[in-house]
Amino acid sequence: MFYHDKKLQYKVRVEKPNPQFARALQQAIGGIEGEIRVCLQYLFQAWNSRGPQRYRDMLLDTGTEEMAHIEMLVTAVALNLEGASSGLVDEIIGNNTMMKEVMGGMDPRHFLSGGLGAMAADANGVPFNGSWVVSSGNIAADMYANVMAESTGRVLATRLYELTDDAGMKDMLSFLIARDTMHQNQWLAVLEELGHGDMRNVHPIPNSFPQDKEAKEFSYVFVNTNVDPDEPSIGQNRRWTQGQSIDGKSQFREEKAKPYGQEPKLGPPAAEGHAQVEQLQQAGEKV
Amino acid sequence: MFYHDKKLQYKVRVEKPNPQFARALQQAIGGIEGEIRVCLQYLFQAWNSRGPQRYRDMLLDTGTEEMAHIEMLVTAVALNLEGASSGLVDEIIGNNTMMKEVMGGMDPRHFLSGGLGAMAADANGVPFNGSWVVSSGNIAADMYANVMAESTGRVLATRLYELTDDAGMKDMLSFLIARDTMHQNQWLAVLEELGHGDMRNVHPIPNSFPQDKEAKEFSYVFVNTNVDPDEPSIGQNRRWTQGQSIDGKSQFREEKAKPYGQEPKLGPPAAEGHAQVEQLQQAGEKV
Amino acid sequence: MFYHDKKLQYKVRVEKPNPQFARALQQAIGGIEGEIRVCLQYLFQAWNSRGPQRYRDMLLDTGTEEMAHIEMLVTAVALNLEGASSGLVDEIIGNNTMMKEVMGGMDPRHFLSGGLGAMAADANGVPFNGSWVVSSGNIAADMYANVMAESTGRVLATRLYELTDDAGMKDMLSFLIARDTMHQNQWLAVLEELGHGDMRNVHPIPNSFPQDKEAKEFSYVFVNTNVDPDEPSIGQNRRWTQGQSIDGKSQFREEKAKPYGQEPKLGPPAAEGHAQVEQLQQAGEKV
Amino acid sequence: MFYHDKKLQYKVRVEKPNPQFARALQQAIGGIEGEIRVCLQYLFQAWNSRGPQRYRDMLLDTGTEEMAHIEMLVTAVALNLEGASSGLVDEIIGNNTMMKEVMGGMDPRHFLSGGLGAMAADANGVPFNGSWVVSSGNIAADMYANVMAESTGRVLATRLYELTDDAGMKDMLSFLIARDTMHQNQWLAVLEELGHGDMRNVHPIPNSFPQDKEAKEFSYVFVNTNVDPDEPSIGQNRRWTQGQSIDGKSQFREEKAKPYGQEPKLGPPAAEGHAQVEQLQQAGEKV
Amino acid sequence: MFYHDKKLQYKVRVEKPNPQFARALQQAIGGIEGEIRVCLQYLFQAWNSRGPQRYRDMLLDTGTEEMAHIEMLVTAVALNLEGASSGLVDEIIGNNTMMKEVMGGMDPRHFLSGGLGAMAADANGVPFNGSWVVSSGNIAADMYANVMAESTGRVLATRLYELTDDAGMKDMLSFLIARDTMHQNQWLAVLEELGHGDMRNVHPIPNSFPQDKEAKEFSYVFVNTNVDPDEPSIGQNRRWTQGQSIDGKSQFREEKAKPYGQEPKLGPPAAEGHAQVEQLQQAGEKV
Amino acid sequence: MFYHDKKLQYKVRVEKPNPQFARALQQAIGGIEGEIRVCLQYLFQAWNSRGPQRYRDMLLDTGTEEMAHIEMLVTAVALNLEGASSGLVDEIIGNNTMMKEVMGGMDPRHFLSGGLGAMAADANGVPFNGSWVVSSGNIAADMYANVMAESTGRVLATRLYELTDDAGMKDMLSFLIARDTMHQNQWLAVLEELGHGDMRNVHPIPNSFPQDKEAKEFSYVFVNTNVDPDEPSIGQNRRWTQGQSIDGKSQFREEKAKPYGQEPKLGPPAAEGHAQVEQLQQAGEKV
Repeated sequence: MFYHDKKLQYKVRVEKPNPQFARALQQAIGGIEGEIRVCLQYLFQAWNSRGPQRYRDMLLDTGTEEMAHIEMLVTAVALNLEGASSGLVDEIIGNNTMMKEVMGGMDPRHFLSGGLGAMAADANGVPFNGSWVVSSGNIAADMYANVMAESTGRVLATRLYELTDDAGMKDMLSFLIARDTMHQNQWLAVLEELGHGDMRNVHPIPNSFPQDKEAKEFSYVFVNTNVDPDEPSIGQNRRWTQGQSIDGKSQFREEKAKPYGQEPKLGPPAAEGHAQVEQLQQAGEKV
Repeated sequence: MFYHDKKLQYKVRVEKPNPQFARALQQAIGGIEGEIRVCLQYLFQAWNSRGPQRYRDMLLDTGTEEMAHIEMLVTAVALNLEGASSGLVDEIIGNNTMMKEVMGGMDPRHFLSGGLGAMAADANGVPFNGSWVVSSGNIAADMYANVMAESTGRVLATRLYELTDDAGMKDMLSFLIARDTMHQNQWLAVLEELGHGDMRNVHPIPNSFPQDKEAKEFSYVFVNTNVDPDEPSIGQNRRWTQGQSIDGKSQFREEKAKPYGQEPKLGPPAAEGHAQVEQLQQAGEKV
Repeated sequence: MFYHDKKLQYKVRVEKPNPQFARALQQAIGGIEGEIRVCLQYLFQAWNSRGPQRYRDMLLDTGTEEMAHIEMLVTAVALNLEGASSGLVDEIIGNNTMMKEVMGGMDPRHFLSGGLGAMAADANGVPFNGSWVVSSGNIAADMYANVMAESTGRVLATRLYELTDDAGMKDMLSFLIARDTMHQNQWLAVLEELGHGDMRNVHPIPNSFPQDKEAKEFSYVFVNTNVDPDEPSIGQNRRWTQGQSIDGKSQFREEKAKPYGQEPKLGPPAAEGHAQVEQLQQAGEKV
Repeated sequence: MFYHDKKLQYKVRVEKPNPQFARALQQAIGGIEGEIRVCLQYLFQAWNSRGPQRYRDMLLDTGTEEMAHIEMLVTAVALNLEGASSGLVDEIIGNNTMMKEVMGGMDPRHFLSGGLGAMAADANGVPFNGSWVVSSGNIAADMYANVMAESTGRVLATRLYELTDDAGMKDMLSFLIARDTMHQNQWLAVLEELGHGDMRNVHPIPNSFPQDKEAKEFSYVFVNTNVDPDEPSIGQNRRWTQGQSIDGKSQFREEKAKPYGQEPKLGPPAAEGHAQVEQLQQAGEKV
Repeated sequence: MFYHDKKLQYKVRVEKPNPQFARALQQAIGGIEGEIRVCLQYLFQAWNSRGPQRYRDMLLDTGTEEMAHIEMLVTAVALNLEGASSGLVDEIIGNNTMMKEVMGGMDPRHFLSGGLGAMAADANGVPFNGSWVVSSGNIAADMYANVMAESTGRVLATRLYELTDDAGMKDMLSFLIARDTMHQNQWLAVLEELGHGDMRNVHPIPNSFPQDKEAKEFSYVFVNTNVDPDEPSIGQNRRWTQGQSIDGKSQFREEKAKPYGQEPKLGPPAAEGHAQVEQLQQAGEKV
Repeated sequence: MFYHDKKLQYKVRVEKPNPQFARALQQAIGGIEGEIRVCLQYLFQAWNSRGPQRYRDMLLDTGTEEMAHIEMLVTAVALNLEGASSGLVDEIIGNNTMMKEVMGGMDPRHFLSGGLGAMAADANGVPFNGSWVVSSGNIAADMYANVMAESTGRVLATRLYELTDDAGMKDMLSFLIARDTMHQNQWLAVLEELGHGDMRNVHPIPNSFPQDKEAKEFSYVFVNTNVDPDEPSIGQNRRWTQGQSIDGKSQFREEKAKPYGQEPKLGPPAAEGHAQVEQLQQAGEKV
C-alpha cells in the first residue's frame, strides 16, 4: 500500500509564470511520453508480476517514485499559470496587445476547466489514455517498453529544458532528466540479468544532451520508496544498487526516498476563475 | 512525495479463480466509476489546490489511499485469472464443452495482451480516459464530483458483490464498500463546512445495500496516509476525523494508514502465455 | 418523442465576431462540462428510468431544454466565426500583422473541417465522448452526477462570461447561467425528496458569481417542454415547480417552454471555405 | 428550440427479454452507424447552415425526428435487459448452466454501470465519439455524409432484424428501416436539386432487404416535427414532400409528427442493481 | 502484398517553412477527412471484399495510391517545420517578438514529441481513430462512404490551398485535389454500374473550386499501382479507365503508377531537438 | 511511393472457420501490439527521418512489408468469419444450443458493422489509436520503440499460436512469428551501429517459444520491398543483410520481396448480411 508526505521530491520553483510553458509541460504529465504513463506502467507490471520477486519490488519502488514526479509537474503547471487568466481575458477581449502575444499558445482549458490547474492530458489537451500502460507478462518485453518510455521521456524532458530559460524550471528539469538517466539504466540492468550483453554506449538517450546539465548527484541512485521498518530493503545485493552503471558512466548506489523539495505553495485563486467565496476568503489560511 | 510497503491495505483472497469475474472487476479499476479515476481526481485536486490547506491535506491522504485500492483490485484480477489461459485454449480450440461455458465472457486481452494480468481499462476493455479526472478549481463543484464518483463507485462495488459468491472476493468488496461509505461522508463534510445543511438520510449511496455486509470497522474512519514524522497529522480537529458522521449513522475517527493485508502472492506464469524462460524458471524464487 | 420550432430559446447576438471566443465556447458544447453531455445524460436517465414517474417526466423536460442550449451555443460559435477564414488566410500567409494577433488562438478545424461552423468537440478540438453520459440506475447517484454537471457547467459559463465584453454574448451567458442555477436547484429538490436535509447555502455553485448578473427572471423557473395537449403537465404539485427554492434564495415557478429568441440568421458562406456554388448563390434566399 | 411529449414515435414491445440482443441494439444507439450520430449530424448541419433556408429547415425536422429514434432504441434495450442481472449473477457464480448460455454475450456494463439501462456506446461498449458528426459547410459533401450514414444505418437495422425473432422487435425495426428508406431519399432529393441526375436504382441501400418487410406506410413520408402554429410548415412545395421518390419506388408525402407509440413502461429496478430504497418502493407509482 | 520505391508520387517542395501551415496539413494526414483514413478504408474494403473481383482490384489500386499521399503530406509537414524549434524557443522564452507572431499557432508536439516530424493526428493533435475506417460489407454503402470521404477530403484540400501562398505547397495541393476529383469519379462509376443513373453536375465536390487550378493532367486518370508482370492490369475494360467521366467533364484514362516526384530530402535534425549524436554527425551522409 | 500485387506475402488458409479466433486475431490488426501500429510507426519514422539515409531506407522497406501483414491478418479474419452470421442468428434467437457455445465470444460488430469483415480495431472492438505511432526524432529512442513493438507483437503472435489448432492458422502464424524474429534483430542491428554492445541472449522475445515452430527460412532474412529497377537495393553492405544475426542464432541474408501466398479467395456474402443484390449475384464472377 501507499503513503505520502506533503513535501516534493525535489524543489519546484518558477521565477516568472509562463502559461505557454505550462501547456508544454502537460506533455510530461498526461502525454504518451509522460509520468502518468510510466507510473501506472511500472505499478501494473509490479502488481501483475508472477516472479521473480526482486523485479516486482524494484518496479514498486520506481512506480511509487513516479507519483512524486507527476506531483512536481502538476505543481510546475499551476505555478506557471499564475496570472494567466487575467492575461487571457485581456487577450480575448482585445485590450492588451502585449499580453496577447504572451498568451497566444495557452491551453484555454487550463482556465475554462481547471481554474488555473493542470489536467490529465497532453500538450494539446488530448486526455491520457490507459492503452499506453504496457504490462505484457513477459519481463523482457516489459523492460523494452520501460527503456523506450524512459528514452522518449528523457528526449521530451531535454526539449522542455530547451524551451525555458527560467532558472527554477531548468533546475527541476535537470532533476527529472537525471532520474530518467537512472531509470534507463535500471531497466537495462534487468535486461543484463536476463542475458543481454554490453549496452554501454547508447545511453542515456538522448546522448546529445550534456550530462553536466543534469543533476548528476541523482543520475545513478536507486531511490527506495519502501517505508516498511521490517523490510531490509536497503543494502540488498542488486544489480541496480551497486557496481558500474549499465551505461558505463558511473557507479550505482541506493538511497532511501526522502524529499529534497518543500511543501508547495500556490497563489490564491484568481477572481475571474470563480472558486467558491470561501476559497477566496480562506486561501491563505494554514488550516 | 510518495512511499509504499509491499503489503496490501486489506487482504485479497480468491477461493476459486473466475475469469468472468476478473473481467467485471476491471470496471472498478479502469472504468469511469473506478479507482484510477478517483485516485487521480483526488490527487490532481490536491496538487492544484489554492487553499485552504486542510482540504489539500485531506485530498492527498485519500488520493494516496486510492492507490492501494487499485493495487488490491489488480491483485484480485490476477488471482481470478489463474488457470484461465488453458481454459481459453480449450474453449477456442473446442475440445472442452465445460470450460467453454466457464470462459465464455472472459476478456481475451487478459491473456493476449496481459499474459493473465490486469489492464488500465474497463470491463469491455475500453481504456481509462484522462478526461474523467475532474479538478475544476471550485471546491464545491469538486466535492460534488467526488461524492458522485464515490456514489457510482459504491453502486458498482455492491453490484460486483452480488456477482460473486467467492468468500474471499466478498470479503475484499465489503472493505471497499466500507471505504466508499467513509469517502462519501468525508466529501460531504467539506460541503457542510462550506455551508451545506443537513445531509443525513440519503447516504451512503446506494442505501439499499445492507450496511451489516460492509466491513463496518472501516466505514467511518479517516485513513491518514501521511508518514512525515514531523507532521502532527493525527489528532487535528477536523470535521472528518471526529464527531458524528454526515450520514448520521456513526462517529468519525482517524487512524494512521497501515496494511491489514499481506504481501500478495501470484501463481507462476502460464506456459502458454510465453513469459521469458528465466521467469518460468525463477518464478518461485524469493529474490 | 420530440418536436421543435425554428426560434432560439433565448436571443443570441454577437456584436463583433471573435474566433478565439468561438473556440472557448466549444467547451460548453462538446466538453465534459458542456451541453451535449447534460442533454444526453438527462435523456438517458429518463429513458432508462424505472420509476417513480415524476422523475422521468422531469428529466425528459430538462433534457429537451438542453437541446435548445446546444442550439444557442452552436449559433454563437457560427456567429463568432464570421470573417474568421479570411483572417486565418492572412495570418498563415503572413501579410497581416494585426489579424494575426486576433486569430492567434483560433481552432483551425473551425475553418478546415467546419467551413466556419461548430463541432461536437471541446475547446481543444477533442471530440465529445459518450463515456461522460452517466445513467447509473440509482436515482441518488444520478442526481449527484447532475448537480456536479450543472456545477462544473455553471463554473464554465461564468468563466466564459469573464472572457468576453461582447454585450450580446454576455446577455446569452447570463441566460445560460440562470438556467444552470435552476437546474442545480431542481436536482437538489429530488435529493431533498429522497431524504436530504437542508442544502441552502452552497448553491448556486459557484457562489462567487454575482446573481444580479444572471438573467434572474429565468433562475428559478422550471421550463416545461411537454407539448402534449392531453397532458396536465403544468400545475402539478411538484417540489421543483413551487415553494422555496432549495438554495433558499427565491421561489420556484413553472412555465411552458416558449422561445424568447428569434430564428437565427447566419451570414453567407465564406468564399475561401468552398461551399457548393449553389450555396454561395442562394445563401440569402428565404427558401 | 425543442419540445417533447411522453409517447414514443412508434411502439416498442419486447415479447421475451434478450440481453444479447440488447447488446447488439447498442450499435444502433451509440455506434458510428447509430442514431446519436445522425441526430447530432443533422442538427449541427442545420445550426451551422448558411443557407438556403429550406435545407436548414429540413435538417432541423429530421434531426429532431432522430431524437425519437434514440428514445425508441434505449427503451428497447431497457426492455430487453429485464431479468438480465439475476441471470448474470447465476452465470458468473456458476449455479445455472442454462442461464449461462443465454447470458453469454451480454455487455457486463449494462448491469455494472447502467443497472439494466442503455449507454451512449456501441455493441462493444466503446463510447460514442463526437468526431463522427460531420458538418463540413459544403452542402453536397454533407448530403453524401448523410446518405452514407443512412445507408450504413439501414444495413445495420436489417442485420438487427435478422438477429431477432421477437415479433415486437421486428415490428420496431420495420419502422426504423422504413424511416431510413425515407431519409436516404430525402438527402438524395437535395442532391437532385443541386444538379444530380437520376439516382433511382441503387436505393434504398441495402437493396437486398425486401421492402414488404418494412413498415411501408412510413417509407416515403417526410415527418415534419415543427410545432410552431405560426409556421406554414406543412404544404410547402418541397422536392421531398411531394412527387415521385428519388428511388422511383413511390410518391413522397408529408405528415405532421405525431406519436404512433405509447408512453414506455419499464419494469421495476432489479434488487441486485441497488437502486435507492425509495426507487424500489415507489417504482410502480404513477407520480 | 506491397512494394515501394523511394520517390514521391508527385513533387513536394516548400519555399518557406511555415509551422502553422504544418499544423493545418496534419488534418489531411490524421484527421477524419485525411489520407490515413481513406488508405485504410479502401484497403479494408478490398481485403474484406467478397466479390465481384473488379471492385476488389480497384480498391487495392487506389488504397495503395493513398499510401503515397500520406507520404507526400508527411514530407510536406517535415519541410514546413524546418527551423521551427528555434523559433519556438524564442517564442516561449520571449526574446523575439517577430517569431512569436509567426509561431503562434504551431502544434507544440511537432517539436516536443516529433522532433520536427509529423504525427498520426489531426490539426489539433487528436490521434487518428480506427473507427473512421468504414467497411460495411455492402458495396453501395461503402461507395457512398468513399464518395463522402473524397468530398470532405477535397473540400479540406481546397481550404488548405487557400491557406498558403507557397508555390510549392500550392503545386502539391493542385495534384492532391486532382486525385480527389478522380477518386470521386471512380467511386461514382461503381455506383453507376450498380444502377445509379446520371450523376454529372454536382461533382467534383466542392464545385466552387476552379478546376483550372488543379493539376488537370491527373484529374481523370486511374492510377494502376499493380506491379505484377503476369497481371494484365492495364487495358482491361473498366468503367473507370475509359469513356466519359461520371461528372461529364472529361474522359477517363489509365496509367501505370510511377513517381513524378523525387526522393525527399529533409534538412538535418535541429540541435535543440536532441537526436542522437550520431544522427547529428551523419545526417548528410548518403548511407 | 507504393505498389502492390494481388497475392499474399504468405499463404493464409483456414481449415475450419472460428469466429472466436477471428476476434482474437483483431488484436494483431488494430491492437496496440498490432500490425497497423508497426506499419505506420516504421513509415512515419522513415518519412520523418533526417538522416542517415540507410535507416530511412530500411524503415521504408519494413514498413511496406508490414502492409502485407495487415493484409494477411484481415484475410484470416474474413475466412474465420465464414458462416458466422447464421450461427449468430441461431445463437441470439435461441434455437441452437450447440452453435451458441461456438459463437459465445464473437465480436458482434464483425457481423453488424462489417458484414463478416475485419475492422481497424482490437480484440475488444476498441478502435486503433494514432497515438501509438511513435516517431520521436531520436533514432535510438525510435529503435527501442520498435524493438518493444516487435517484442510485444511476437508475444501476442505466440499466444495466438497457442489459441488455435487449425493447421492453416498455425502455418500463417509461424511465418509472422519468424518475421518478428527478424524485425527484432534488425532494429537491434541499428542499436549496435549506434554503439550498443552485445545483445545476443535475450532475443527473440519471448525466448520461451521454440524456434523450430517458426518458419525458420524467414527468421533472419531482410525483405527488400523496393521495386525501383534503378536502385541497387540488393547487395549493399548493411549490418542487417549479412553477417551474424544480433541474437547470435543465425546469419542475416537479404531477399527481394515476392509473394509466397496466392490471391485470397473469400466466400460469397452471407444472405443475412444484406450486401447489395448485385454483390450476391456476381460474387463468384472473376471480373
